[in-house]
Amino acid sequence: MQVTSEQRLDDGVRERAFTLGDIPGFLWTPESASASAPVPLILLGHPTLGLARMYSRLVDRARHSAAQGFATATIELPGCGERPRWPAMEQTRAELRRTLQAGEPVGDELVDALILPLVDTAVPEWQAALDTLLALPEVGGPVGYSGGVISIGIRLAAVDPRIAAAGLFAGSYVPRTTFQEARQITIPLHVLLQWDDEGNDRQAALDLFDAFGSKEKTLEANMGGHTGVPPFAGEAAARFFTRHLK
Amino acid sequence: MQVTSEQRLDDGVRERAFTLGDIPGFLWTPESASASAPVPLILLGHPTLGLARMYSRLVDRARHSAAQGFATATIELPGCGERPRWPAMEQTRAELRRTLQAGEPVGDELVDALILPLVDTAVPEWQAALDTLLALPEVGGPVGYSGGVISIGIRLAAVDPRIAAAGLFAGSYVPRTTFQEARQITIPLHVLLQWDDEGNDRQAALDLFDAFGSKEKTLEANMGGHTGVPPFAGEAAARFFTRHLK
Repeated sequence: MQVTSEQRLDDGVRERAFTLGDIPGFLWTPESASASAPVPLILLGHPTLGLARMYSRLVDRARHSAAQGFATATIELPGCGERPRWPAMEQTRAELRRTLQAGEPVGDELVDALILPLVDTAVPEWQAALDTLLALPEVGGPVGYSGGVISIGIRLAAVDPRIAAAGLFAGSYVPRTTFQEARQITIPLHVLLQWDDEGNDRQAALDLFDAFGSKEKTLEANMGGHTGVPPFAGEAAARFFTRHLK
Repeated sequence: MQVTSEQRLDDGVRERAFTLGDIPGFLWTPESASASAPVPLILLGHPTLGLARMYSRLVDRARHSAAQGFATATIELPGCGERPRWPAMEQTRAELRRTLQAGEPVGDELVDALILPLVDTAVPEWQAALDTLLALPEVGGPVGYSGGVISIGIRLAAVDPRIAAAGLFAGSYVPRTTFQEARQITIPLHVLLQWDDEGNDRQAALDLFDAFGSKEKTLEANMGGHTGVPPFAGEAAARFFTRHLK
């Protein structure tokens, strides 16, 4: 992990921009975090829009988490932001745009092509990031995963026992294999669903929630459209992590 | 309103048992409530098991609400507890038990017979109770309604503009007319659904949530069976009332 820049935000949160090989990322730690008082870590998932475009929302989540005593970290997704272009993925996204513009249904094969290569590539990268982040003296376990592409969160929770709790956002296309992986998950889950999210398949989100093997799982559905998660829902998600990671 | 007994609970909450005509009820007020500092009121709904059997759960909800600065009140449902028997209702309930024991589906007509007379009778009684309770100097508005038979809460919220926010529990049979009334509701709603509640029609609960006309509505689904609402869900419901009644 190469720290490429570092700053203190006005609320005392320490922000480190880093690279892991050619993958850029951010680590935010609360002022209190130290080798003698390591803090739990929440991995901040995000959509495939690139870290630069997501930065202000990510830093907002990082500040809120720091106020609750959590370190947070995120890395760029493959083919996004300043990472090398991924022509096959760009072609699939173009195909998705064409399908949506034509008002055609988004078939299983397109969803698989859109999501599975992303999951297959991203999840080992997030695991490698976790290896590195947990080796820092001021960052401890347990680890939470929050938001982003739901299939990445589900695969990560299914394959990596270090993930102790996950807050997921039902708002992406979901391949059939993700449903199978959901059944293997037993950690506590907090799932946000925007009920009136027009771009989201509500029934698929409900089916996915049903599929999770976890004994403790909460679905919170709200109004406000895809990007209109109400502040109180963010606070409920924060309390979920406090319950399970502290 | 005739106060039939009064006591201070150990946390300072004032409990008054009362009758309104032949209807028994309870009023709980926090220690701080006074004519110069009236507190908002939450009506505590409950199932048709009788107040005596529900008392310990009701007083628990009352204490938690008092700690948040709310008065709470409840009245006995028609045909329940010590109120006069209601032979037609008892016959319908016997028919429901027979249907369930036989493993037969509970049809719309049986649901209507089970719920609609109860709603038609109970709602004006809760409104009359509200008239009386709001006339007390230490009780002010706005008013919330919480829990109990969901069709009673929906009818009350649809017909009485004094109800400013409602916390509903998706766990009862729902007549078709309740869906129509749900569309008329525009106040903020917080709906609890026990996802693995075997006695509850989950799809009907989701359809009902969809039907509500409210711009702010939250569905929180959890595991734990019909009576296993987790403590954190109760806390989330309490925060909902604090957001809207304070």
